[in-house]
Amino acid sequence: MVTQVESHWWARDHLGYRDGRLAFCGRDVAQTAATFAEPLFMYDAQRPIEKLRSIERALNRHAVRHRLFYAMKANRFAPLLCALRADGRYGVDACSPEELREALACGFAPSQISYTSHGMAPDEAALLAALPEVLVNCDTLAAVRMMGAYGTRREIGLRINPGLGIGYGNNERLLYAGRTTKFGIYREQFDEAIALARESGLAVTRLHCHAGCGYLDAQLRAFEAVLDAVCDFADALPGIREINLGGGLGVPHRAADKPLDLDAWAAVIALRTRRLGVTIAVEPGDFVVKDAGLLVLQVNYIEKKRDVVFAGLSGGFNLAVEPAFYDLPCEAAPCVLRDGEPSRVTLAGNINEALDLWASDVMLPPLTTGDYVALLNAGGYAASMSSNHCMRGRFREMLLC
Amino acid sequence: MVTQVESHWWARDHLGYRDGRLAFCGRDVAQTAATFAEPLFMYDAQRPIEKLRSIERALNRHAVRHRLFYAMKANRFAPLLCALRADGRYGVDACSPEELREALACGFAPSQISYTSHGMAPDEAALLAALPEVLVNCDTLAAVRMMGAYGTRREIGLRINPGLGIGYGNNERLLYAGRTTKFGIYREQFDEAIALARESGLAVTRLHCHAGCGYLDAQLRAFEAVLDAVCDFADALPGIREINLGGGLGVPHRAADKPLDLDAWAAVIALRTRRLGVTIAVEPGDFVVKDAGLLVLQVNYIEKKRDVVFAGLSGGFNLAVEPAFYDLPCEAAPCVLRDGEPSRVTLAGNINEALDLWASDVMLPPLTTGDYVALLNAGGYAASMSSNHCMRGRFREMLLC
Repeated sequence: MVTQVESHWWARDHLGYRDGRLAFCGRDVAQTAATFAEPLFMYDAQRPIEKLRSIERALNRHAVRHRLFYAMKANRFAPLLCALRADGRYGVDACSPEELREALACGFAPSQISYTSHGMAPDEAALLAALPEVLVNCDTLAAVRMMGAYGTRREIGLRINPGLGIGYGNNERLLYAGRTTKFGIYREQFDEAIALARESGLAVTRLHCHAGCGYLDAQLRAFEAVLDAVCDFADALPGIREINLGGGLGVPHRAADKPLDLDAWAAVIALRTRRLGVTIAVEPGDFVVKDAGLLVLQVNYIEKKRDVVFAGLSGGFNLAVEPAFYDLPCEAAPCVLRDGEPSRVTLAGNINEALDLWASDVMLPPLTTGDYVALLNAGGYAASMSSNHCMRGRFREMLLC
Repeated sequence: MVTQVESHWWARDHLGYRDGRLAFCGRDVAQTAATFAEPLFMYDAQRPIEKLRSIERALNRHAVRHRLFYAMKANRFAPLLCALRADGRYGVDACSPEELREALACGFAPSQISYTSHGMAPDEAALLAALPEVLVNCDTLAAVRMMGAYGTRREIGLRINPGLGIGYGNNERLLYAGRTTKFGIYREQFDEAIALARESGLAVTRLHCHAGCGYLDAQLRAFEAVLDAVCDFADALPGIREINLGGGLGVPHRAADKPLDLDAWAAVIALRTRRLGVTIAVEPGDFVVKDAGLLVLQVNYIEKKRDVVFAGLSGGFNLAVEPAFYDLPCEAAPCVLRDGEPSRVTLAGNINEALDLWASDVMLPPLTTGDYVALLNAGGYAASMSSNHCMRGRFREMLLC
């Protein structure tokens, strides 16, 4: 049975069972969790860098000139940001004034920061005016006007809306475009935006576009359509030097998900954009950190209610909202494999809401009260979106180097 | 036009327009918000007490002996808890160890605290053992066992699961029962739970049940069915002294919603439970605080994108998740009424997610950049569930006395 579990789709060099115990970056997960008093996020410091390298390699293979920015909204744990900063090859994507300040606080230079917020407030424009090297992308005409009003003659990017959206399993909550969305400048206002920038003393040299969340191979065809739409904008922008394709690269959430074929992805980018002679920027978040993190919880009770065996865990959806609110699958792994046949169990959180279930009716090896369970793919949009709902918001984060 | 706006369904004594400006508890909302630098929650200190009084009056009219506990998970702003404590007539419903400690910190006596968590951790049982007067309800057999193991011979309640659920507009995310849920003890395990308690030196004298969220008149028939199911449990519990019906009483979210008819609600309770001779406990949260609070945001931009006019506000769904995640309607009121015809507008938050819209395509009087907009019904499950997503989590709370 242990052999069978060893073959889990998510197992890799630094994550898997050794003698029936889950090991992560060389640590025994259960032992590590037992040294903390609260729910524990464990992050692999190397994985994000490997993931960024894999993107670089794919783009290099297809001779795509590029820049990579890590989307810190996915995970802003300072030791993780500092590890990326220390590596030195990658910038960071910030989406709010406080994220920008946090990136600076973790050592990133202004020129390493790509800044794309939605809308713009006056104090935000003032902050950006004080940081002329930050790579600002405006997603409204109002933002262009505001940046212009602050009088710095700088280069800016325009966030555009290609009118198309892609996302994991076509999850409606994760779709960015398709219907009219709040993001970016549509094609019919693009020429006006460029003219407005020029009048405001700003030079538009970059396009920015973010078409969706969590896309995998199945969405690559849709990604091509997005690229074609982006190229239409690029053709209307003389002097364009860079196209930022945002993030949205996905990771598998369950056995049936095939990982994104980066080579195919890079080939598509090369094919569609080479004629433009621009640098391609990419701002992955989830792709970089999601599978670099575990959330480790303890089993508070096991109890059959009617036809369902519930295992109640020591943390709830407020610590990692994606399973409950975005209907993303959540894969669970017991930290110690007990002898016995796997059976069906529903993993419940400890919040007084019916939707607070981690996984329903999944096959797991035997669990008992006090056991630790690792929830996979908890490295992105988990701690960073956590709340103190029901005052159950305490957790610890830990970077494994 | 101002007259027309005055007739808004939500207007009441302490909330409405005066000379074209929104006033709340005698304060000018726009002026008040302008004195703070961040999104502002404003709470009416009197409204929660009035709402609790209205429940009391309805129950008294039908001669229902009762106790009321405010569900602090809805809003735990300390000044608000202290105002309720100072009033002295109501207890508090806590659902986690930290909520229990916060209730104590705000001056509630242990005997005024009803405690119903999901599952139970060993440190939680130890805390409760140290507070023998707290009114504990166990929602698993495991919790009964754990309470028993700590050796305090106390009275407990059992949270039961009637196998039926009700909620606002039959919103699936808010349904507590119907399918097998993690909550409470089902009828088929009830006798075992009572026996287990007895063996553990615990006396079961209360039943606790929470059947749904946000129910209004349209759900009263379903509420009757829940009560009938609860009475089945009560009949099997000799010596029962109290039935706690939890919360779930709703408030209107839009003009079409009729407020809950408390008299009809109390009549149903009286009719169904009188023969049992028990005290009825109620633990409302939203009903008490939801319409006691406003979230005041500023307009950062107004811009037409394709066919949609967007007004971008200075806060996003991370400050109040219900519109985005529970699909609850969000009513918006400009804090200053400008001259001009109302027109259609979509209110967007400032988070980089497509779902971050407060209200889509609603008719509002003219808005302009810098204007303040009040989002109604922000008193419950807003600040208490807020996150620092995108590091846009800053806000201020203010109690208006």
